[in-house]
Amino acid sequence: MTDRLETESTARAWLQQPVKALDLQARDAAQQRQQQLTKPAGSLGQLEAVAIELAGMQGCACPQLDNITISLFAADHGIAREGVSAFPQAVTAQMIANFAQGGAAISVAARELGAQLEVVNLGTVTPLAELSGVRDQTIAAGTQSFLAAPAMTAIQLDAALNAGREAVVRALTADAQLFIGGEMGIGNTSTATALACAQLGLAPALLAGPGTGLDEAGVNRKVTVLEQALQHHHSELNTPESILRCLGGFEIAALCGAYLHAAQRGLPVLVDGFICSVAALLACAIQPEVRNWLLFGHRSAEPGHQQVLAALEAEPLLQLSLRLGEGSGAAVAVPLLRMACTLHAGMATFAEAGVANRDD
Amino acid sequence: MTDRLETESTARAWLQQPVKALDLQARDAAQQRQQQLTKPAGSLGQLEAVAIELAGMQGCACPQLDNITISLFAADHGIAREGVSAFPQAVTAQMIANFAQGGAAISVAARELGAQLEVVNLGTVTPLAELSGVRDQTIAAGTQSFLAAPAMTAIQLDAALNAGREAVVRALTADAQLFIGGEMGIGNTSTATALACAQLGLAPALLAGPGTGLDEAGVNRKVTVLEQALQHHHSELNTPESILRCLGGFEIAALCGAYLHAAQRGLPVLVDGFICSVAALLACAIQPEVRNWLLFGHRSAEPGHQQVLAALEAEPLLQLSLRLGEGSGAAVAVPLLRMACTLHAGMATFAEAGVANRDD
Repeated sequence: MTDRLETESTARAWLQQPVKALDLQARDAAQQRQQQLTKPAGSLGQLEAVAIELAGMQGCACPQLDNITISLFAADHGIAREGVSAFPQAVTAQMIANFAQGGAAISVAARELGAQLEVVNLGTVTPLAELSGVRDQTIAAGTQSFLAAPAMTAIQLDAALNAGREAVVRALTADAQLFIGGEMGIGNTSTATALACAQLGLAPALLAGPGTGLDEAGVNRKVTVLEQALQHHHSELNTPESILRCLGGFEIAALCGAYLHAAQRGLPVLVDGFICSVAALLACAIQPEVRNWLLFGHRSAEPGHQQVLAALEAEPLLQLSLRLGEGSGAAVAVPLLRMACTLHAGMATFAEAGVANRDD
Repeated sequence: MTDRLETESTARAWLQQPVKALDLQARDAAQQRQQQLTKPAGSLGQLEAVAIELAGMQGCACPQLDNITISLFAADHGIAREGVSAFPQAVTAQMIANFAQGGAAISVAARELGAQLEVVNLGTVTPLAELSGVRDQTIAAGTQSFLAAPAMTAIQLDAALNAGREAVVRALTADAQLFIGGEMGIGNTSTATALACAQLGLAPALLAGPGTGLDEAGVNRKVTVLEQALQHHHSELNTPESILRCLGGFEIAALCGAYLHAAQRGLPVLVDGFICSVAALLACAIQPEVRNWLLFGHRSAEPGHQQVLAALEAEPLLQLSLRLGEGSGAAVAVPLLRMACTLHAGMATFAEAGVANRDD
């Protein structure tokens, strides 16, 4: 306990550094520009809204999204041993190799977008040889099963949060204009569900879903496991940090740290699906102003996502029944953000084009 | 009447030429490939479905969307004189010039996509000088107001349908792998609503919406005008062709002809919003198999679109509150189709990547 409190007061102090303010002048300029473009006011719907939001984040009337960094955090979950996933735990390490070889969905999508993709291994059950394109930042060979023990120690939590922070520092060094976090970890839908239930005070039966493909009996088993775990940790689930330590995963804590630091440094974030949204929920619980820096890529097929999005008052761009993770749903939404920026910057105004507006 | 029947038996005979059959072998091959890719089965949702659909249309297991043609048909509408639009009628011609100069949303989007954009002027109230990038195929200076007269003659309808057919022939000559139709015409939301009401047997009050930005009083006025018009033409609204002649617009008839011929020639179509979907509805009424060749880009904010999409059993990719027309919603959806194709072709299989599938 002394150890944890001491750690919180030092290694975790950066979490409380202030979030950057939006540039309201740039946002207003973008809003005014939208009113003058040759189209009925509002007729580009959410594309207008995101261009204006990005303007406020990037501090210029015409935002740009040429440089995008995707940091994919991978780790194993002790809870997977309780039979809560449709896939064997060895798949986490196998998929890390697949990311490195370029065969996974996020690898293909990153190439298509011309985005920088890095994979950060925070610890797998199956040991991995050194892989080109994978940054080995192993904290442990996966978390403990949180059914009856804390998922991680306070020091491990610090390391995971900091891994996210460091990824954002690298993205800024690479002049990223948008940050996307991805995740891989067999069992992490269960982890994310536990975290969301604890943070929102909701019952697992309301949020638990099939994840990568559980049948109804599997979902019921998952609900029972999560109910037991939440009961076991009940007295400790008082702060976002403590919730993360008791129930979290290394990759989810890293995403939480990344979103926090992106907001502190003023780097716009595009949040992926359910698991990333839970990390965003915890980051916003630590500092509510983080929310100003988050855009949401897609509404997942996983039922828990609806609750988390509602809590974050988020309206994702896409709803395509995606449920893959890896950051793939955010990656798929990037062309929409780019199109929003291109239309915003490239369209003629009524005056430029000599077109009568409705008020003329 | 003799004139119309004679025309239908000759100039319009091509409408009944058979629609090309899908390649079911290619579609099955694509479906099997999707099952083997390194992701939980079905986890790419609608992106899997459209890749498989495109495979069946293009006749190869891995479809491609490098070459895209956008044909934008523009024309004026007599009904605009009844006060059913928020914008003055002169805007149709002004926007044609804006398309040619590259300042409109569809111009910017086409550049971003590397798509071929052509503008076909089927007739405006305001005369237009020759414009580079605009094909002048004027049929008349807009349609008649269909409040108390047929919108066009049978010969004009033939010319409009044929303009769509010719656009598809040009797209095929340019090796297009996808055809997008766009439309511009002040008042054409009213025209499309009248057509959909006649084809679906629904009341205008159920479908009419704000279009480019009518207030509630404007929408009410539009409903009254449409009710009167449907009453006036009641006895003639027996076939899709007759509905188009009585209530249509030149650009909507051209879109109908284009969709029909694309289906006959086996060129996949990406349908834009409300007005294009009404043209698709009529094309499918002429030959139901046309539906096999249609993908849908977005669900518009215009209320009538929901009814038309339901009748077509269509699930568009996007729902972003777009209501601009021009083909813009389809253009915005193109990167999703491209991403679907790229993921489908580029991802590793479980065997290639050495990743355990859930059944291993």
